[in-house]
Amino acid sequence: MIKVAVLGYGTVGSGVVEVLEKNSEALSKKALDELSVKYILDLRDFPGDPHEDKIVHDYKQIVEDEEIKIICETMGGVGAAYEFTKQALMAGKSVCTSNKELVALHGPELIALAKENKCNYLFEASVGGGIPIIRPINCALTAEKIEVIAGILNGTTNYILSKMEKEGAEFETVLKEAQELGYAERNPEADVEGHDACRKIAILSSLMLGKHVDYSKIYTEGITKITPVDFAYAKAMGMSIKLLAVSKECDDKAFAMVSPRMISAEHPLHMVNDVFNAVFVTGNMLGDSMYYGKGAGKLPTASAVVGDVVDCARHLGKTVTCIWDSEEAPLMDVADAQNKFFFRVKTGNEERVKDVFGNPEAVKLPGVEDEVAYVTGSLTEKDFAQKYEKIADICVGNRIRVGF
Amino acid sequence: MIKVAVLGYGTVGSGVVEVLEKNSEALSKKALDELSVKYILDLRDFPGDPHEDKIVHDYKQIVEDEEIKIICETMGGVGAAYEFTKQALMAGKSVCTSNKELVALHGPELIALAKENKCNYLFEASVGGGIPIIRPINCALTAEKIEVIAGILNGTTNYILSKMEKEGAEFETVLKEAQELGYAERNPEADVEGHDACRKIAILSSLMLGKHVDYSKIYTEGITKITPVDFAYAKAMGMSIKLLAVSKECDDKAFAMVSPRMISAEHPLHMVNDVFNAVFVTGNMLGDSMYYGKGAGKLPTASAVVGDVVDCARHLGKTVTCIWDSEEAPLMDVADAQNKFFFRVKTGNEERVKDVFGNPEAVKLPGVEDEVAYVTGSLTEKDFAQKYEKIADICVGNRIRVGF
Repeated sequence: MIKVAVLGYGTVGSGVVEVLEKNSEALSKKALDELSVKYILDLRDFPGDPHEDKIVHDYKQIVEDEEIKIICETMGGVGAAYEFTKQALMAGKSVCTSNKELVALHGPELIALAKENKCNYLFEASVGGGIPIIRPINCALTAEKIEVIAGILNGTTNYILSKMEKEGAEFETVLKEAQELGYAERNPEADVEGHDACRKIAILSSLMLGKHVDYSKIYTEGITKITPVDFAYAKAMGMSIKLLAVSKECDDKAFAMVSPRMISAEHPLHMVNDVFNAVFVTGNMLGDSMYYGKGAGKLPTASAVVGDVVDCARHLGKTVTCIWDSEEAPLMDVADAQNKFFFRVKTGNEERVKDVFGNPEAVKLPGVEDEVAYVTGSLTEKDFAQKYEKIADICVGNRIRVGF
Repeated sequence: MIKVAVLGYGTVGSGVVEVLEKNSEALSKKALDELSVKYILDLRDFPGDPHEDKIVHDYKQIVEDEEIKIICETMGGVGAAYEFTKQALMAGKSVCTSNKELVALHGPELIALAKENKCNYLFEASVGGGIPIIRPINCALTAEKIEVIAGILNGTTNYILSKMEKEGAEFETVLKEAQELGYAERNPEADVEGHDACRKIAILSSLMLGKHVDYSKIYTEGITKITPVDFAYAKAMGMSIKLLAVSKECDDKAFAMVSPRMISAEHPLHMVNDVFNAVFVTGNMLGDSMYYGKGAGKLPTASAVVGDVVDCARHLGKTVTCIWDSEEAPLMDVADAQNKFFFRVKTGNEERVKDVFGNPEAVKLPGVEDEVAYVTGSLTEKDFAQKYEKIADICVGNRIRVGF
């Protein structure tokens, strides 16, 4: 029997205990041994909880217990979680985590520490919730040189955008509804400003390159400026608007960006709606592939953590290969990134737009007389910004990138 | 350096050599050692081929060479391929294969043989070409009890159906075009009658259940009877028609079936067009997930084989867990399977249809006066067949299952 400890009895932590119990029979088969929760670390007591007897408040009890082989870190944050993870790995105990912030910040250090101590630091749940994406990249797409990763990595923003699209509603209205339904936090900044997606694309980019991508250097733009009018134009062009985290390898540099993008109906990411997430991966041999599923939620996330537990159980005393060096990956200057752009101007300025942008494709909305939209060809961010500045006085609303 | 042999220098075999060469630098990193092709087994000579010097005609030379640790079986068939695979595994050499027929037929025996000899028999390329699906099921979705697998597993039929849908063309016309383009074989039976998809769903079902599903017992129906009129009705209902291989676990029995099905536009499988494949998986914790990519083709398939080679290299002397016992999984009697059915009858028979089917949903095509279509509620196959027989004299065309 393999004894497991769970750090943090919140949503994901209690989900982990639930998955381990509900699927215990199948898990024993797959892990080649029985898995059993011995401790649950939490500051709180849980009187009446069926697992009340497993609650402990002192981490020492867990990390010093020889019997504990695997620890699920589902407490979040980068303070205690970081310390506890280091102590566990140094004690030769494998750690499975859903903590994207910690992975994005200290991934390579903790992976190296696991290797030194012949155990594992696994983090399938840190990106895309229940969607297997870390393991496919690390263990399945190993024959590929991955060229592009583009992900819908945040369920809250995808829910909001899907709803805005379907109902023609304003961002603020839908956000409020999402908050009431519990799909968005009371302080929604981490989601709607793209910070959550940024951590996740930093992790995926690091795995793509085998080097560390610093998330604080990734250009990140949220969805707060998107309006129903933008969706009307997108629809007229057979497109939708998604918050996309995009990463590409360009001449040994990484390009990474989080921003809303218009996506054509022919693209597989187009149909990813509501709280679903998806990661689109292009490899140099395989071509395009996509991984789709629930990106968040108690049980999907817990399922990914427990999948990691099974992998740790199968590899006790051995480290699963994960190539993510601490060496920092050089990031391409965002100013040099090539994109197509959608923007709107007041009618009657066709000549000025042509003077500045050459001959961008014009898009008109039926019944809308006072403005016209354009889609540029591929331009560098810098080039576009300079041109856009020149017509700032006639622009309406926000510019949005098109495709990737 | 790890020496590799390739059996069969055809499309996939030459792709394997190409992938190993083109991505050799990245592969060395990921496999933790250099990978190098020492032999290519083929009956033919390849004068002038850059790998001419590696061609051998006698398998003995490979299987008796201590240096060879990994063998890629890309020759196909179940005769020599079976013998060679057994000999390799008995010699402690891992085998990576794209041979779905051999895997479906002898999977459990070869997996057990690999385990006995501390090596691996891996077959990611046997289902879904380059789409990682075997490894996600075996190594990532391990915390799940998988409840449903539904796959578009054959690129040829999906190409034909997509084209029929887009162009309103007849099956025979599109098949001929596909043959001219090389997307369909001159003898297309294995594809268009569903046999290829049947082998693949047998493999996936076996992994879902951990027991052997005999493909010869899976009810299989091809796409030859699908007509442009069926697509017109599907479109009118917001649906498409796909050849789906479906497998479900029902009370410890497996239900498996290959047949055309109408799929609603809201379902993620709906957007899987042309030569793309996808596998939709529902787990009891994760809910719905989907894996999408190129299901065939030289380089995608070769990429999957080489991904397996990397896994073998990482696990020399150790067997990767794969639960697929030789015990046969009991299959549910198809007669008891529940499905919804679409069928068409000559107009003027509404009362007879009502008498037999209760009140099925009627669908009319604008401009079509001489027939009307119906969609039933959920019925057993047996029940439907009996009822359908009663109105055989007024039926037009083919019945098609709806959803899954």
